Amino acid sequence: MTLTSLAAIAGLAETFPLADAAAADAARARQNSLTKPPGSLGRLEELAVFMATWRGRARPTIDRAQALVFAGNHGICAQGVNPYPQEVTAQMVGNFQAGGAAINQLCRANGADLSVIALDLDRPTADFTQGPAMSEAETLAAMQAGWDAVDAKADVLILGEMGIGNSTIAAAMAVALFGGEVAAWVGAGTGSDSAGIKRKIAAIEKGLTRHSGLPAMGVLAALGGREQAAICGAVLAARVARIPVILDGFICTAAASALFAADPRLLDHCLVGHCSAEPGHRKLLAAIDKKAVLDFDMRLGEGSGAALALGILRSALEVHNGMATFGEAGVSEA
Amino acid sequence: MTLTSLAAIAGLAETFPLADAAAADAARARQNSLTKPPGSLGRLEELAVFMATWRGRARPTIDRAQALVFAGNHGICAQGVNPYPQEVTAQMVGNFQAGGAAINQLCRANGADLSVIALDLDRPTADFTQGPAMSEAETLAAMQAGWDAVDAKADVLILGEMGIGNSTIAAAMAVALFGGEVAAWVGAGTGSDSAGIKRKIAAIEKGLTRHSGLPAMGVLAALGGREQAAICGAVLAARVARIPVILDGFICTAAASALFAADPRLLDHCLVGHCSAEPGHRKLLAAIDKKAVLDFDMRLGEGSGAALALGILRSALEVHNGMATFGEAGVSEA
Repeated sequence: MTLTSLAAIAGLAETFPLADAAAADAARARQNSLTKPPGSLGRLEELAVFMATWRGRARPTIDRAQALVFAGNHGICAQGVNPYPQEVTAQMVGNFQAGGAAINQLCRANGADLSVIALDLDRPTADFTQGPAMSEAETLAAMQAGWDAVDAKADVLILGEMGIGNSTIAAAMAVALFGGEVAAWVGAGTGSDSAGIKRKIAAIEKGLTRHSGLPAMGVLAALGGREQAAICGAVLAARVARIPVILDGFICTAAASALFAADPRLLDHCLVGHCSAEPGHRKLLAAIDKKAVLDFDMRLGEGSGAALALGILRSALEVHNGMATFGEAGVSEA
Repeated sequence: MTLTSLAAIAGLAETFPLADAAAADAARARQNSLTKPPGSLGRLEELAVFMATWRGRARPTIDRAQALVFAGNHGICAQGVNPYPQEVTAQMVGNFQAGGAAINQLCRANGADLSVIALDLDRPTADFTQGPAMSEAETLAAMQAGWDAVDAKADVLILGEMGIGNSTIAAAMAVALFGGEVAAWVGAGTGSDSAGIKRKIAAIEKGLTRHSGLPAMGVLAALGGREQAAICGAVLAARVARIPVILDGFICTAAASALFAADPRLLDHCLVGHCSAEPGHRKLLAAIDKKAVLDFDMRLGEGSGAALALGILRSALEVHNGMATFGEAGVSEA
């Protein structure tokens, strides 16, 4: 599918696959027949039912888990919002490709195939205090790159990002989409001190003044970046293929939240892997009504929390598919 | 080592291996050299440093993870504290041996070798409302069974339990060790209704009246059970071999808490895998000053939360051992 207009994105919700209620019911019935008190595996049971719902099967499996990390550069770095030099984005892409980053280890440990997609790193988006970060065409091109990267044969999709300056992008998008005080959405990111945090807040306030009253996908173009747009494109492509998505932390969730603001149903097939230590994430999870799988005080990005949550999802399905029922095991019920 | 007296257990803390501060420092230094903002992997960094501390190596690995599930039967069931018939303990041991239980799937998914040890299931402990649950000799024999089951070659030990009626045992031990209202420590266990919960509270109050003012290991004998004693023995044997332990939920933690009450240092090498939905567990974690790894609203026991946490620990070590440093990857620092 080719994405041709930002205005058309919200309407996709009407045409997209819905939750499979019959598969969900069958998965719940199976959970209640297994040799354990009903409900006693808590979140693991919910995750198994969630997978059944979106895969459309009572006993879904994960034969292929795809992880996509999108990288972009941001003109907003001109405002001194990040302590790391901007070339770190490309250096970290090199590190991903060489297998040395956290996400490489976490994908190996949890069984995901990782692809890293660098989006025009030598051509940062515009500084949003000066004008829109991206044109509609640039936004659509990055969304399409995300869409096209999704393997329709995957059973689950892990999404992550890398981009020096992009915690500022995330906070700017979150305020524009959900309102509130700028300071409440801003944290230290990769490690800003209090002066750096003040610069982030000032830059975002300037951007919001310049770009006000935009629709959700307009916020993505004006304040977002290429990796944010690619995440949105990948979330949409996954939905068409009925692939459940695991979003990562604050930056990844903020990107996908543009879709939520366009139509909340567009994120129905998404989990959030972890709740980040970046303070805006908890607020954002409340805004999009999602409960993170893990809460480990992590704030790295790269898809790290999503890859970790994949391991939990695998365990949930092993239990769901592998356990004996009361009848099979000859165990007495209550 | 042969355990010969309950009174001698507390004194073992003086003779046992201590945290290896040099290994911990080396692990922290490595974490700070890896290609990520310092501290950005939160709990994963803490877990890697914890493993280094107890394995006495800057870069510990998990080549062998042992899971031990101890099963016992309890005279307290005569007080109607559990909706399941007592034969379910033996039936579930059969289910473990046949590979059909939740813990089998979770051990397979997270790479643990499971052994199930049934402790005199046809000879339940005494009803503690009528007399001590176990004699000192019975308690020591069960502790020894736990001790002897530990494989000194393991890199980490997962502990779990099975025993119809043992959430009543856990609550009784917790009140006796840490005080407070009985009702605050009691929950539904495998699925008691409000009448069942009242019977649990009444039985515990009766037991506490009968067995008051006991030292910690005396509480284990008077109110505990064989699987509780075996868990204590396994925790001690692991410490001697410098094997970090992952405790499971309310019942497993309550058992090990007898050691904490004897000398808090006896649990220094233990993590708690998850915080159970059983309401007493959160209270118990506060009493022993431990933060659970996961919080998934689980309440099954069997070691299920501990086995799930093993997967997280594996990821933490993959990151710790596998990531490139800033120098190795040629990534600029802040």
